[in-house]
Formats: sequence, structure tokens, C-alpha cells
Amino acid sequence: MTRSSPLTDAGTPARIAASVLAADHRTAEGFDEWLAEQRARSVTDVRPVPLDALDGWSREAETGNYRHHSGRFFTIEGLDVHMADGPVRRWSQPIINQPEVGILGFLVKEFDGVLHCLVQAKVEPGNCNGVQLSPTVQATRSNYTGVHRGRTVPYLEFFRDSARHHVLADVRQSEQGARFYQKRNRNMVVETTEEVEVVDGFHWLTLGHLHRLLAIDNLVNMDARTVLSCLPFAGLRLADSFDVAGEDFRAALIRSCSQEAASAHSMAELLSWITERRVETDVYARRIPLRDVERWRYADGRITHETGRYFDVIGVDVAAGTREVSRWMQPMIAPHARGLVAFLVRDIEGVLHVLVRAHAEAGYVDVVELAPTVQCAPDNYAHLPESARPPFLGDVLAAPADRIRFDTELSEEGGRFHHARNRYVVVEADEDDDLEGPGFRWLTLHQVVNLLRHSHYLNIEARSLVACLHSLSAGPS
Amino acid sequence: MTRSSPLTDAGTPARIAASVLAADHRTAEGFDEWLAEQRARSVTDVRPVPLDALDGWSREAETGNYRHHSGRFFTIEGLDVHMADGPVRRWSQPIINQPEVGILGFLVKEFDGVLHCLVQAKVEPGNCNGVQLSPTVQATRSNYTGVHRGRTVPYLEFFRDSARHHVLADVRQSEQGARFYQKRNRNMVVETTEEVEVVDGFHWLTLGHLHRLLAIDNLVNMDARTVLSCLPFAGLRLADSFDVAGEDFRAALIRSCSQEAASAHSMAELLSWITERRVETDVYARRIPLRDVERWRYADGRITHETGRYFDVIGVDVAAGTREVSRWMQPMIAPHARGLVAFLVRDIEGVLHVLVRAHAEAGYVDVVELAPTVQCAPDNYAHLPESARPPFLGDVLAAPADRIRFDTELSEEGGRFHHARNRYVVVEADEDDDLEGPGFRWLTLHQVVNLLRHSHYLNIEARSLVACLHSLSAGPS
Repeated sequence: MTRSSPLTDAGTPARIAASVLAADHRTAEGFDEWLAEQRARSVTDVRPVPLDALDGWSREAETGNYRHHSGRFFTIEGLDVHMADGPVRRWSQPIINQPEVGILGFLVKEFDGVLHCLVQAKVEPGNCNGVQLSPTVQATRSNYTGVHRGRTVPYLEFFRDSARHHVLADVRQSEQGARFYQKRNRNMVVETTEEVEVVDGFHWLTLGHLHRLLAIDNLVNMDARTVLSCLPFAGLRLADSFDVAGEDFRAALIRSCSQEAASAHSMAELLSWITERRVETDVYARRIPLRDVERWRYADGRITHETGRYFDVIGVDVAAGTREVSRWMQPMIAPHARGLVAFLVRDIEGVLHVLVRAHAEAGYVDVVELAPTVQCAPDNYAHLPESARPPFLGDVLAAPADRIRFDTELSEEGGRFHHARNRYVVVEADEDDDLEGPGFRWLTLHQVVNLLRHSHYLNIEARSLVACLHSLSAGPS
Repeated sequence: MTRSSPLTDAGTPARIAASVLAADHRTAEGFDEWLAEQRARSVTDVRPVPLDALDGWSREAETGNYRHHSGRFFTIEGLDVHMADGPVRRWSQPIINQPEVGILGFLVKEFDGVLHCLVQAKVEPGNCNGVQLSPTVQATRSNYTGVHRGRTVPYLEFFRDSARHHVLADVRQSEQGARFYQKRNRNMVVETTEEVEVVDGFHWLTLGHLHRLLAIDNLVNMDARTVLSCLPFAGLRLADSFDVAGEDFRAALIRSCSQEAASAHSMAELLSWITERRVETDVYARRIPLRDVERWRYADGRITHETGRYFDVIGVDVAAGTREVSRWMQPMIAPHARGLVAFLVRDIEGVLHVLVRAHAEAGYVDVVELAPTVQCAPDNYAHLPESARPPFLGDVLAAPADRIRFDTELSEEGGRFHHARNRYVVVEADEDDDLEGPGFRWLTLHQVVNLLRHSHYLNIEARSLVACLHSLSAGPS
């Protein structure tokens, strides 16, 4: 038995910081050419097919649900939702039910004393641009138990037998609760000291390099972002690892990652607030047959809301791959409008805080998760009165350019969503506004990172934005 | 907005320690007489009634479920369970469905600089001995929303409006997953500096005094134990608050509460292990109509397993109270045998560790929780081969007296269970045994306390035992 002091992993945040500051490490050489080559060689041919004509899928006679003949992957079902405090109090909708917990994992290794992540150039059918950068492993349980006809997943063994390696993060996190019924994936970061052969389609990158790539539209995929957010990028005196002083945005951001930094609320207060929100929020969600969903219609081979809003359930015929090309058909969720995902942030006594919202979605396992300050598709609110719009939406949309610290369009996962893109924004709020109501709290980044060691605290959109915020810690390149 | 450093609550563990060491504080005077008086004045008349003759309850025609006419409180339903790795892989059983989250809360206040808890002498129909000591508040949502005909719950306002006070703990925790379907209660400890009038039936006690009372059979009730376990009784250099040195059991126990103490596993390793157990354990539990439960029979006014094992669902006619006497009828779960709940503990390099088990119960919200080393009703295994018995059951039953550090019979909650008693035991394991398998890990108490800030990590039986372990920190009286 090994003996660990609580400080065994104390060196990890400083090693993460060193990698964040190493954007120009020698492994960056040739990356752009590698990516261009992966793109050039990639095949993505995705054509619409009527839902009822998908090979391998069928509509169940009794329920109207769509399911694969193998009984695996996922099903499209219905969800009946009551949400006592929502702008809409009762509705039903199609939902993806995918009960298997998959693995999203970055393999990490030190070169020249600097941590590197092994990224994959991955084609997915829902990507708007073919190749995006994914974690080392992105595998559903079906992927590695043979339903995909036994094609092996490279590097999976590092995650299946993680006890042999150094586990930096290993936590199940939720995905979109408005589209998935209780879906969770296992987010892992595993460090190895073993020899790792880099197979075609993979590339080692420092965290600093990956952070720079986060500023490019639709390049770093959702799975990569959520895994990055779970890294323990917060530690005692982490600010010492960075050469910062003064009062600027970056200095406040880095102090926010230092465990000893003061915070607007103690962790006990925050946990109590989360408990209270979870107890007081009445959400009732029940799986129902897809055919019983109200106000949704099957027409022209797809399922559409009668108003034409929200999303469609479509069918696609896919030929995709970089190395090998696969062909298959599947249903996908195609949103109608680009979303907006934004954190208001603020320097409170020299420490950056983010304004999180206690937010209920029908598909969450545990009632409420912490979401970005604003998370919505603005178009879906255009027909509603001002009072029904999400709080702070106007502030974000009207923010002057010099208050916007991050602004990039990023894609949601391309395995289930078709061209789902959100604008991710970080906006500095006015220092004088007191913006906390019962549903909002200011958190430091070290508090966020501590919560991210556990399941079900931060939602997928907030985790993406946390990765984006971390990407600002190295400063402009 | 207040500004908190992460150390704002850093003084709390030392204040808890001071209260633990103050068993003989002046508030202890007169307690025994007060308790005797509460007992003498208490009324508990509980008579069996056939389930089908309960006033206010009926059996639903379609499902066979038992429900209250108001539609509230709880229902007795069925659960269909598949557990791939259990000694029994598939079964169905009656289960209590009580979706409301109630409040279990200790009100805490300093007198003469020493923290005191306000305990209640409470009569519950399932108690084997009438009065037991409960937290200040033990309220279902029905209690405080008027279903109980508006009788007010004393001190509830401190917990409903906790933001005005100092919240030491506030976390939803599970209850028996083999008897309840996803039941959770909100465990709260709230400190006030306001004047508190002590109404009849309540008494201020130091933690040290409460700890002494934990050694008395069936006195401190389950709800009090679980709330006590959620106190942040772990801090940096907590050992400095105690006058301990050397290598004895108590010194190792107190070092185990000190955050800086070395542990067999880092927190990252433990969280990864819990994630892995939750992903790898296949549990499938589905609510079914009670009438579809197999191998259970309605006979003689109760529901019984065909073997006569496990438990019965019975009906009772209750007249109970100390101050006011209420009368009502209700179903209850009556176990057939006394259970055994035990921690194996061990000094690892001067720090006490407890051997926890990753344990699945059908009613858990999140697959697996950490349980005591042994938790079972030994009688239920008498008919099964040795290999089907829980690991370490034999070790606990055969432990010599000088290895047994705690051994008390304590009751489970008296609102739903009839005379449910478990023997709670702490046994020192042999130092040379390596007892960890895939399902077991050695944890320090500070690791346990850190996990207890969050929901669904430690089950109700483990939490009770953690309170019992903490009660050993003051040493013999």
C-alpha cells in the first residue's frame, strides 16, 4: 500500500501552470501542417435521410420511439416536464436516452518536464467543418464492447486500467439536460510515464497551445473542453507560478485559481445555497413514448415543433473518417438557432469571480446544476415578452467590445447534434452592480475547480466556459 | 456582500473539538432528571392493525400500492431489482417511496464559549423504548406545509431562513437504500447568536455529552446521528486541540481528523475509485406495482416474504407524544432480525483509517455509496453458503473483546421502521492484514468528513458509525 499525504497531488497545479505557459514548446512545431493534412484527408459526407428510412433504426410500433436494431447506442423518446418556476411550466419534447456512461479521456505525459495532452483530429457527423480536436479517447461503452464490430479504440487501455498510471481527474459529468435524459460521461485525465506510440491522427500539445486553439471558432470540440475543465487547475499559491502583478484582468484571473485567495462566499455558504436550490426547485420529468409528445410533428422525414422553434430530430446518412472511412445512418438533433453561453465576471478585491446560475434542466440527474450566467438560444425568446427573457441576456448582448474578454463560436458534440454551435462569451460586469439574486452567486475559479472534482455541480456549458476562462491565464500570445 | 477567505470557517473544527471535550459542562447538570421526566410523561401506545384496515390509508385498486388519502407522506410500492454482481441477481420487494426532502437539523449556539446542540426528547411509533434523542428539527415537507393540520414545528424558522445564521453543514444525504426508493433528507447544522427560548421537550447539550450518550443502547436516534456525522469535525492541525500523544487508539483517531495527516490513498485516488465503482456496477431498479412483487404475500394483515425472512410491512395504530398526544394509523416496515453494522479500523503509520465498502443498494440515487465494512442482518445469511456471506462478517463476529472499541445497539428511524435495531461496532483489525479488494478502501476520518460535505458519498449506516467513531475522541469519561 502506498502512503499519500493530502499534499501528494499538490505539485499537479504547478505542473499544469507550467504547461499552460508553454504554448510555444517545440511540440507546437508542425502542428498547423499536421492539422491541415488531417483536414485534407478527412471525409465527411452527411446527407439528410427521412427518419423512417434509416438503415439499422426503426420506429417502435407501440411507443413511436426510434431505436437501433441492436438495442444499443441511444433511443429517441419523449419527456413530459413540469417545472414550477420556469417561464413555461409544462411541456413535452423529444429527448435522447443514452444510459451508458462513456469515457472522455486525455492521455497526458511529460516531455522536457512539460505536461502534454494527446489530442485527436476527429471527424464527427454533426461537425459543421469536418475535423475538430477531441480528447485522446472519446468512447461510448458500445465502442469498446464490440457493438461497433470490434474496431479497437486507440489508447483506451490507459483509461480502462488507470490504476497503473497517475490519475489527475476522474469524474462523471452531465451533458445537455435539455437534450439528454440523465446522460453522463466519465471525464478522465490520466498521466503516464510509459512509452506512447503516436498513431496517425493524434498529436501531443501543451495546455498553453490547446488554450490558444480555444480562441479559434469550432476547433476544440465539446468533449475536449469538458475534460480540460476537470483538470485540477487550482492550488495553494498557484499565482506564484505566473509572472503577474497589478490589477489587470489576467492578474485577477490567476489569483482566482489560487486556493488561498479570498472569495465572496465561503464553500460552506455555496454548498448550502446549492442544497437549498435543489430542495426548493420543483422539477418533475417523466419519460413518455415519443408518440405522446405534444405539439411536435413528424413531417418531411423529421420531427419538428409546431412553431418551428427549438430543434428538429433529423436522420442522416454518414460517410466520415480521416484514416478509415465508415458509413452508417443515425438520428441527430439539429438546433434551429445558434446559442449564447456567457459568464459575467468581475474583479472582487483583486480576485476574479464568475457569476453562476443555479439552473434546472429536465434531464439532470440531480435537479439543479450550476450554469453560466446566460445560456440560451436568443431566437427562442424573440416571441416572448421582455420579462420572460433570461436575466442578463440584454447585458451580454449589449456589452461594449472593451468588456469582452473571450468571444468564440464553439461546437457542441458532433455525435448526436447536427451543426450545434454556441457563441461562448466572457464579459466583465460593472463593478458597482450587485447582481446576485436567489438564483445567482459569485464564485472564484478555485471554488469552481474544487466543485468539478465531484459529479453534477457544473453543467456542460459552464464547464466549456471554465476551460475558455483558463485559456486566458497565459495572456495574449 | 461579505468577503470570505477559504479560512473563514477554519475556526469551526477547533470549536467543535472544544465542545467534544466539554462533556461535563454545566448544561449537563439536570439532564438525566430531565430525560427521566420526559420518559415518564411520554405516551407510546402502538398496536398492530391489518394493513387493509388503516384509517386514512387505502390499497390502490390498480397497483395494490398503499397510499394516504391526502396523496402525501409516503407510499408502499414495489421495486424490481437487477444487480449483476450481487449474491442474488434479481428480486422484487416492497419499498417505501417518499419523494419529499425533509429537514433534519441541529440548532447550535455557544454558551460560555462552548458550542451546544439543542436536542429533542422525541417519541416515535417505531421506537422500541418510547423516547429517544432527536435533532432539534425532524420535519418532512408535509410537516411544515400543513398536511399535519398546521401544527407548527418548533425552531423550524432557523432552518427555513438559514441565511440569517451561520450554517455549519447543509447537505442532502440518502437513507436506507434497501427500504426507501431514492429518499433523501437535508442534514443541517445551523449556529445562531440570537436568543433561543428552550421549550418543553428540548435541552442544550455539548457534543461531548451527546457523544457519551451514544454509548447507551437505543438513546441517540438515527436522525441525530446522521446530522452529527455531517459536522465539519476535521481541520488543519485539529490534533492540537486535544491533549494527545503516543501511539494509542485515541491518538490515532484524533490524528485521523487532522487534515494534514497522511492517508493510505490520496483524495484523487479515492474519487477515481468511487467513479470506477459507479460506472462498473450494474444496478437496475424500476418501480413496479406492489401487487406485482414476487414471493411476497399478504396474510394476517401484513406483507411477508414467503421464507419469513427480511422484513414485514405491517399496519399500526399509534397514540404517541410527550407534550401533546396524537393518534393516527400508518404502515411501517418491521425487520425480522437485528442488523450488524461494523467498521474495521486500523492504525496506519499513526493515523486511524476505516475500511469502507463501495456498496450498491437498489434505492440509491447514484448506484453506489460508501458503506461500513460490514452491514447486514446476519440471520438473513444463515441459509446461504459461506461464500455468499458478506466479506469480514466472520472477522467482526469473532473479534476478541480487546479489539472492540465501540459496541452499542442503536435504532433506525422510528417514523417508518418498527423496532429496527442494529448493533454498531468498531473493531480494530490486525495490522498485518491487507484487506483491500476492488470493493474496499482505507480512508482517514478527515477524508470521510470532506466527502460528507457532498451528497451520496456515505450511506446512512456509515454516517451513524462515523458519529460513533467521533464519540471516541474524548476518551473514556
